[in-house]
Amino acid sequence: MSNLPGIVITGASGRMGQMLIKTVLDSDKARLVGAVEREGHDWVGQDIGAAMGGADVGVTVTSDALEAFAKAQAVIDFTAPAATIEFSKLAAQARAVHVIGTTGMTEEEIAQLEPSARHAVIVRAGNMSLGVNLLVQLTKKVAAALDDDFDIEVIEAHHHHKVDAPSGTALMLGEAAAEGRGVSLKDVRDSGRDGITGARKKGDIGFTAIRGGDIVGEHDVLFAAAGERIVLRHMATDRAIFARGALKAALWGQGKTPGEYDMLDVLGL
Amino acid sequence: MSNLPGIVITGASGRMGQMLIKTVLDSDKARLVGAVEREGHDWVGQDIGAAMGGADVGVTVTSDALEAFAKAQAVIDFTAPAATIEFSKLAAQARAVHVIGTTGMTEEEIAQLEPSARHAVIVRAGNMSLGVNLLVQLTKKVAAALDDDFDIEVIEAHHHHKVDAPSGTALMLGEAAAEGRGVSLKDVRDSGRDGITGARKKGDIGFTAIRGGDIVGEHDVLFAAAGERIVLRHMATDRAIFARGALKAALWGQGKTPGEYDMLDVLGL
Amino acid sequence: MSNLPGIVITGASGRMGQMLIKTVLDSDKARLVGAVEREGHDWVGQDIGAAMGGADVGVTVTSDALEAFAKAQAVIDFTAPAATIEFSKLAAQARAVHVIGTTGMTEEEIAQLEPSARHAVIVRAGNMSLGVNLLVQLTKKVAAALDDDFDIEVIEAHHHHKVDAPSGTALMLGEAAAEGRGVSLKDVRDSGRDGITGARKKGDIGFTAIRGGDIVGEHDVLFAAAGERIVLRHMATDRAIFARGALKAALWGQGKTPGEYDMLDVLGL
Amino acid sequence: MSNLPGIVITGASGRMGQMLIKTVLDSDKARLVGAVEREGHDWVGQDIGAAMGGADVGVTVTSDALEAFAKAQAVIDFTAPAATIEFSKLAAQARAVHVIGTTGMTEEEIAQLEPSARHAVIVRAGNMSLGVNLLVQLTKKVAAALDDDFDIEVIEAHHHHKVDAPSGTALMLGEAAAEGRGVSLKDVRDSGRDGITGARKKGDIGFTAIRGGDIVGEHDVLFAAAGERIVLRHMATDRAIFARGALKAALWGQGKTPGEYDMLDVLGL
Repeated sequence: MSNLPGIVITGASGRMGQMLIKTVLDSDKARLVGAVEREGHDWVGQDIGAAMGGADVGVTVTSDALEAFAKAQAVIDFTAPAATIEFSKLAAQARAVHVIGTTGMTEEEIAQLEPSARHAVIVRAGNMSLGVNLLVQLTKKVAAALDDDFDIEVIEAHHHHKVDAPSGTALMLGEAAAEGRGVSLKDVRDSGRDGITGARKKGDIGFTAIRGGDIVGEHDVLFAAAGERIVLRHMATDRAIFARGALKAALWGQGKTPGEYDMLDVLGL
Repeated sequence: MSNLPGIVITGASGRMGQMLIKTVLDSDKARLVGAVEREGHDWVGQDIGAAMGGADVGVTVTSDALEAFAKAQAVIDFTAPAATIEFSKLAAQARAVHVIGTTGMTEEEIAQLEPSARHAVIVRAGNMSLGVNLLVQLTKKVAAALDDDFDIEVIEAHHHHKVDAPSGTALMLGEAAAEGRGVSLKDVRDSGRDGITGARKKGDIGFTAIRGGDIVGEHDVLFAAAGERIVLRHMATDRAIFARGALKAALWGQGKTPGEYDMLDVLGL
Repeated sequence: MSNLPGIVITGASGRMGQMLIKTVLDSDKARLVGAVEREGHDWVGQDIGAAMGGADVGVTVTSDALEAFAKAQAVIDFTAPAATIEFSKLAAQARAVHVIGTTGMTEEEIAQLEPSARHAVIVRAGNMSLGVNLLVQLTKKVAAALDDDFDIEVIEAHHHHKVDAPSGTALMLGEAAAEGRGVSLKDVRDSGRDGITGARKKGDIGFTAIRGGDIVGEHDVLFAAAGERIVLRHMATDRAIFARGALKAALWGQGKTPGEYDMLDVLGL
Repeated sequence: MSNLPGIVITGASGRMGQMLIKTVLDSDKARLVGAVEREGHDWVGQDIGAAMGGADVGVTVTSDALEAFAKAQAVIDFTAPAATIEFSKLAAQARAVHVIGTTGMTEEEIAQLEPSARHAVIVRAGNMSLGVNLLVQLTKKVAAALDDDFDIEVIEAHHHHKVDAPSGTALMLGEAAAEGRGVSLKDVRDSGRDGITGARKKGDIGFTAIRGGDIVGEHDVLFAAAGERIVLRHMATDRAIFARGALKAALWGQGKTPGEYDMLDVLGL
C-alpha cells in the first residue's frame, strides 16, 4: 500500500474537491497523502474524513501546500486560475505531477505554467472525462474521412440549470469537426435554428441544445448523408468520471518526462 | 376483388399522387377505379400504369372528376386548397368518402368544406401518419399526467432541404403538450437556444431542430425530471406511410355517418 | 412544519431505507417521524442521522414498529415479504397509509394484506417510478391502437451486476403490450435471439437485454412497421426516483378510502 | 461526359444490379458503358433502360462480358463466387478496376482472385457502406484505447425478414472490438441473453438483435463504464448506399497500382 503513488487534493472542501478525495480513497492504485485548503478555512486542522461527515482517514487538512506536495507524487487541482498558477510552482519544486482541471484560464495564465512544465509533468484538460476526450479525437478523424455530403450536427443535452448554449464541450467537438475538414468553425457554425431558416447550407456545422431535468451531459456528433448516418455519442451520468479521469492522469504522469500534456496523451491517442 | 372499395386518386401525376396510386394498387383491401388530372395534362387519356412508366393497369387518367367519383367509394386528395374545395362538392354528390391531405388551407377554406360534410364523410389531417397522430395523443396525456418537475422538450430532425424550424409536426406536438398542461404554447415556447440563455424557465416547452442528410422526419417528445426521463418518439423512414394512412382513412370512412373527421377518429383514440 | 404528514421508514439501515430517509428529510411536503430496524440491530437507539454518518436529525431508530407507526400518517416499506405482512397489520391498527415497495411477494403473501386494506390505505407496486408506471399504461394503449403490422420489441439496458434477463420491468411492459393486443405473453414471447432464428413471427413480442457499466435502468418499447416506428422510452438515472415515487404515494394516500391501490391510481391514469 | 470513367454492371437484372445501374446513370462522375447478364437471359439484347421499365439509355444488355469490360474503366460486380472469379480474370485482361460486393466467398475462392490482382486493381468488401467500414475502424481504435472497465455491447436492428442473429455486420464489429483488445471474439462472445444469466462477465462482448418492420440496418457499439458511455452508431436507411459505396470504390481505383484493396483503403483510413 505504501508504494502506491501519494496524491494531494487542493480545494478539498469544494464539491469537486470532495469528489476527488472520495475517488482517491476508493482507489486501489493510489493513496491520499494530503488535502489542502486556503488559510483560515475551518476545515484546516481537521481530519479530512471527519470534515466530510464520515470517519477519520488519517489525513489532516492543511493550508501549507508545499509541505503537503513534498510528500506526494501527484497533485490534483480543480480550483481557480490564480491558485493553480501558484500550485504549479510548488508542484514543480516538489517534482510532483500536477493535474489541472481548473477552467476559465486565459492564454496569459496558461503561459505562466510553462516554467513549471520544464521541471515537472503537467496534465491539463478542459474536460477530464476519458470518453469526451476520445470523442473529440474520433470526431476529427471522421470529419476528415467523410466529405461534405455528410452534414455534421452537434447535439447536446444538459440539466435545466445550465445557462449557456451550446455547451463548451459541444463547441470543442465542433472545433474538432471543423479542423478535420480543414475549415474554421466560425465560418460554418449554425446554431439556434428558429423560424424560416432556409435550406441547410452545405458544409455548415449545426448545434442544438436540449435542456431538461438533471441530465449530467450528453453529446452526439451526427454525420448525416443520403441513406446513412453515423453518430458518435458520449453520455456522462455521474460527475465522478471527471475525478476518475484526473486520477488516471495523475497515475499516467508518473515517470514521464517533464512537460505539458493533455488527456489525449493520457489516452494514448 | 370487385367487392373491395373503389378508390380514386386526384393529382395523379404528382409525387404524392403517384405514391397513392402505387399504394392502392399494392393493397388487397381496396382497388383503384380512377385517376384524375387537370384538363390539358398530357397524362389524360393514357393508362395510369403506363403513364407512370410501368405496365397498363386498366385505369385511364381522366379530367372528369365527377364521372370518376361516381364509380368510387372514396377519393384521396393531396392537391391544393381551391381544387380540394371543388372536389369535396363532387365527392359529396357521389356520396364518396373524401380523404383530404391537402395542406395550407386557411380557416375560410376549411369552412367551405362544411356543406359537403353534411352529405358525405370527410377525413382531413395535416399529417396522415398513424404514428404521428398517435404520438400527439400520447403527448397530451403524458403532459397532463406529469407535473412541471418534468421539463418538456420537442426535438425533431429532418433532411437538409427543409426551410422552416421547428417543423409543423413539432409544433403540433408542442400544442398537445401545452394543452395537456392547461397552458398556451405561445406563453411557454422556447425555441432556438443560442448563447447566454440563462437557466431553463420552469414550465417552458423547448424546441430543437436537427437538419441533415435525407432524414424523412423524426420527432422526440422528452419529459425530463431529476433522475428519470420519458421519451415519446416517432420516426418516419418512408413517405409511403402518409399514403398508407390516407388509404386507411378511406377504408375506415366506409359506412360512417356524414361529417368531418380526423386521423384520431380513424385511430379510435 | 408540524402539520406536514409524518413518515416512518422501515428497514432504515438498508440501501433503500437510507435513500428513503434522505428523500423524506429533503422534502418540504413531509417530515420524518420514525425509523425502524429489527431488534438487536446496532442502529437501534441511535439518532438515524448520526447512524447514517451525518448530523443528528432528532429521530431515534427503534425496533418498536407499532409505537413508531402510531405517530405517523404513513409508513414506507421496502423490506421483505414476511416483515411487510406484519407491518401491514400494525399500519392498519395505526390507520397509517402503508406504501409497499417490497418485491418477490407470492400470491399467497399478497392475499394476506387484504384484511389490513379494509382498515387503511395500502399502495403497492413492483416499480415505484412514476415514469415506468406511466410507460406501462402507454404501452397497453398503443398496443391496442395499432394492429400487428407493427412489430413490438421491448429493449432494456441495465448495469453489469444484473443476473436476470429480461428485467422484471421489461416483462411488465411485455405483459401490458400483450394485454393491449388481447393475447397472452407466454404465447408470443420471443427472447434471446441467437443463431439461425428464421424470420420474425408476426405477432411476436421480442425482448433484448443490454448489460453494461452502471446503467440504472432503461426500457424502450418499439413498435416498428414498414416506413415508421414509435418508441416509448423510460430512462432511470438515479435510484432516488423509486424513493420519491414512494413518498408521492404516501402523500397521495392521505384521506383516501381504505383499500389496496397501485401507482397507476397515484398517477391518476 | 465522354471523359468520365466508364462502368460496367454485372448481374444487371438483379435487385442490386438494377440499383447499381440507376446509381451510375444518376452520377455525374461516371457513365454507364455496359450491362452484363448470363447467356440466355431474356434481357440480353434489350436496352437496359427499357428492360428496367423506363426509357432507353443507349446501353444494350450483353452476355459477352469481355467485350463489355474492354470498353470500361471499372466493373462493379455483386453476383456469386464462381461468376466473380471468372469476371476477375476478364477484368484483369481489360485492365479494368474490379469492385467486388459478392458475399459468401470461401478462403479458397478469395485466393483465386490473386492472379488477377497482379494485373489490375480489385476492391473487395463484405459491406460497401462507407459508414459501416468507418465504424469498424473506430470500434477497433476505441476498444484499444479503453480498458475493460468499459463493457462492450453490439446492438443491431434489422427488418423482420432477417433470418440470422446477430447480423454479419454486428459480428464484424465484434471482431474489430476483440482485435482492438487483443482477444479472440469466440472466447468473449455473449449473445442471446435470456433467463438467469448471472452477472455479466468482465471482458465479454455482448450482442443483441432487434427485429421489426422494414429497418434497413442499424448498429450500435456501446462502451459502458461507471458514470459514462460511448456509443458508435451507424444507421442505413436506404440500400442505395451500398451501390454508392461501390461506385466510389470504382472511381477511387482509377490509376492505382494493381493489387487487392478494401473499403478502408478507399476511405483512406
